[in-house]
Amino acid sequence: MTRWSPDARRRLREAALDLYAAIGYEETTVAAIAARAGLTERTFFRHFSDKREVLFDGSDELNQRVADAVAAAPRDALPLDAVVAGIAAVGAFFTRERRPDARLRRKIISTHGALRERELMKLEALGDALEAVLRARSSRELARLAAEAGVAMFRETFDRWVERDGDWLSIAKGVRRDLGDLTASSNRPSH
Amino acid sequence: MTRWSPDARRRLREAALDLYAAIGYEETTVAAIAARAGLTERTFFRHFSDKREVLFDGSDELNQRVADAVAAAPRDALPLDAVVAGIAAVGAFFTRERRPDARLRRKIISTHGALRERELMKLEALGDALEAVLRARSSRELARLAAEAGVAMFRETFDRWVERDGDWLSIAKGVRRDLGDLTASSNRPSH
Repeated sequence: MTRWSPDARRRLREAALDLYAAIGYEETTVAAIAARAGLTERTFFRHFSDKREVLFDGSDELNQRVADAVAAAPRDALPLDAVVAGIAAVGAFFTRERRPDARLRRKIISTHGALRERELMKLEALGDALEAVLRARSSRELARLAAEAGVAMFRETFDRWVERDGDWLSIAKGVRRDLGDLTASSNRPSH
Repeated sequence: MTRWSPDARRRLREAALDLYAAIGYEETTVAAIAARAGLTERTFFRHFSDKREVLFDGSDELNQRVADAVAAAPRDALPLDAVVAGIAAVGAFFTRERRPDARLRRKIISTHGALRERELMKLEALGDALEAVLRARSSRELARLAAEAGVAMFRETFDRWVERDGDWLSIAKGVRRDLGDLTASSNRPSH
């Protein structure tokens, strides 16, 4: 008999999200999250460093998967098409079933400065990971710009997926098309 | 005779930057910054909420000026060309004389998580301001994407300006061209 709980992470995540939604992020303690999940505080801290981090579980892995898929994209793909391949590779995280929780999570994050800061740091980490793999395709400056634009595409893909119906991949492709339209015709004559 | 010091802000900014560079950000106290500037702590707190904020003096005004210039760009300009007009409008902040301080500041920020978080929040505020004014030109989703891409352009313009010689406007135009090249030829046949 063991107290090791294979689904502890998931239970803590769900308990945290429930409590943040029900009584508020500020008011929720780690003790309350652990209790609701039927686990101890000690178990909480084995999985998460603080009550912010529980909302960002999996995001490091997600960033890594995106970057790996960018690195694996065809050699002659344009940097931003490689980024689309990276975004497409994590579609399994963004299923219809996960949308309600994602929507709730986004709402909680948007109303707390400390959570927004943490989210921005995670997106910054995505940008750093993208830049590192894009260096194989571009100069340093172009890789940095493409990484930033890639983060913009990821954010917009995520926002549209949260707000609308539709599947992750077709949304990502739509964002890619829109970015092309937004940038393509510079210096057109004004008419 | 008055103790009001018209250049207090500038002196506090310079003193803070000197101390952060000389003895480190963590080790520097508000008292030390005020003393070096020949001012009191109370004066410091009249100008800045904490020792993080002193590194970001003027950034709210900068964001506002960029957004105002985007709003004032020709009606038929593409969203990202309007953003270039916004970036161009703050060129007076980014002169050759300011480059050494900007370089030092960037180095200090890059090595402290708390400062990076604050910087990301300022960039997020720029994105929000851009999105608000771009709504006059685009749908909500396109305005949000263009705002994110605009922040990417601003960051890359700033990074190149810090790292290289060259004037702000021509760097901004180069970034705009590069973004066009990065995104223009989606769906080209692979060959």
